[in-house]
Amino acid sequence: MMEFIKDPMAIERRSMEIIAPYLDGLHLSSEAIKIFSRIIHAAGDPDYAKVIRIHEAAVAAGCQALKQGCDIFCDVEMVRTGINKKTLAGLGGQVHCLIADESVAATAKQEGITRSMAAMRAFGSRLDGAVVAIGNAPTALFEVIRLMEETGIRPALVIGVPVGFVGASESKELLAKTSPVPYITVEGTKGGSPIAAATVNALLYMDQQR
Amino acid sequence: MMEFIKDPMAIERRSMEIIAPYLDGLHLSSEAIKIFSRIIHAAGDPDYAKVIRIHEAAVAAGCQALKQGCDIFCDVEMVRTGINKKTLAGLGGQVHCLIADESVAATAKQEGITRSMAAMRAFGSRLDGAVVAIGNAPTALFEVIRLMEETGIRPALVIGVPVGFVGASESKELLAKTSPVPYITVEGTKGGSPIAAATVNALLYMDQQR
Repeated sequence: MMEFIKDPMAIERRSMEIIAPYLDGLHLSSEAIKIFSRIIHAAGDPDYAKVIRIHEAAVAAGCQALKQGCDIFCDVEMVRTGINKKTLAGLGGQVHCLIADESVAATAKQEGITRSMAAMRAFGSRLDGAVVAIGNAPTALFEVIRLMEETGIRPALVIGVPVGFVGASESKELLAKTSPVPYITVEGTKGGSPIAAATVNALLYMDQQR
Repeated sequence: MMEFIKDPMAIERRSMEIIAPYLDGLHLSSEAIKIFSRIIHAAGDPDYAKVIRIHEAAVAAGCQALKQGCDIFCDVEMVRTGINKKTLAGLGGQVHCLIADESVAATAKQEGITRSMAAMRAFGSRLDGAVVAIGNAPTALFEVIRLMEETGIRPALVIGVPVGFVGASESKELLAKTSPVPYITVEGTKGGSPIAAATVNALLYMDQQR
């Protein structure tokens, strides 16, 4: 009744074995397989295999930026919590999130916008050359798209996987259609902080035997 | 192109309106509707409507314990991050997570078990009367079930929604079959930290007009 695998690395290996067949026939690169697998693992949902979209230059751009010690900017604390900050720090980078910042909260209230949207605006040109990871708020992704279009900021990679029924699909579709930089996204209403963090971690682990 | 709802409360209201039809015909109580809606909202996934299982005494038990200022014990930091700690503090409770605790990590390594499992064992009788919220690790849920069976601990409510392909389904099935206390779970491989946090927050907001 209570027999189960208790060793963390064995659990991860077995999980990846179970996920592998869901990726058959998708003609994915070995790098894409790692991203798809970690996302499906994080959600417990093989249907993600049908909706993950990885721009052809995304893995190279993301890995190169991270190796050079770039920072990661995210919309909510749950994304920051899920990212392997020890591995990131080993490369010289850190994670930033301003959703709980008081001046950001004040701006958001004053302008009638979400705090995560105000946070992206506050980051501004700090997003240049960085990895942006949006796991919750469509409004934050819309704002990053606007900043790229109107102010010319150029992140190295935009991971845009906000979740929900109000603007999420639309913001991700707009990212895929108009982004001037490489991106990773999922189509539709699904997404979330674990999806964003899993994607970042897959990139962080890309050159490791994991 | 960039027209979208930017007001947080308007987004939440609109989201709940979009989710409502997916719950038609399920004959849910008004309390269950709030839990189902928040979970579906957090995952962007209406299919959760088919797999959420709420024990008949779960809402009353969880709300009563929280109102009396009980603490919440969770398996991973992402669950803690997602819980509305301000609302919880207003009731007198706080959230505990030991996954990053050094002595828990040492025990886990020594015994070849996961850290979240060692963490539940370390909590032990502190789980009595508390809300347990497991969003990631099947091993942690298995351990809580064992603690209830073998040591007689009795949480007020077990929210058991670990995710993945190795043990998640089995641990949740065992919870539903054998739990001596009320529970909230989801069948199958899906789950995760946002699902656990959304469930806790739905209970925290139950008596509010939200």
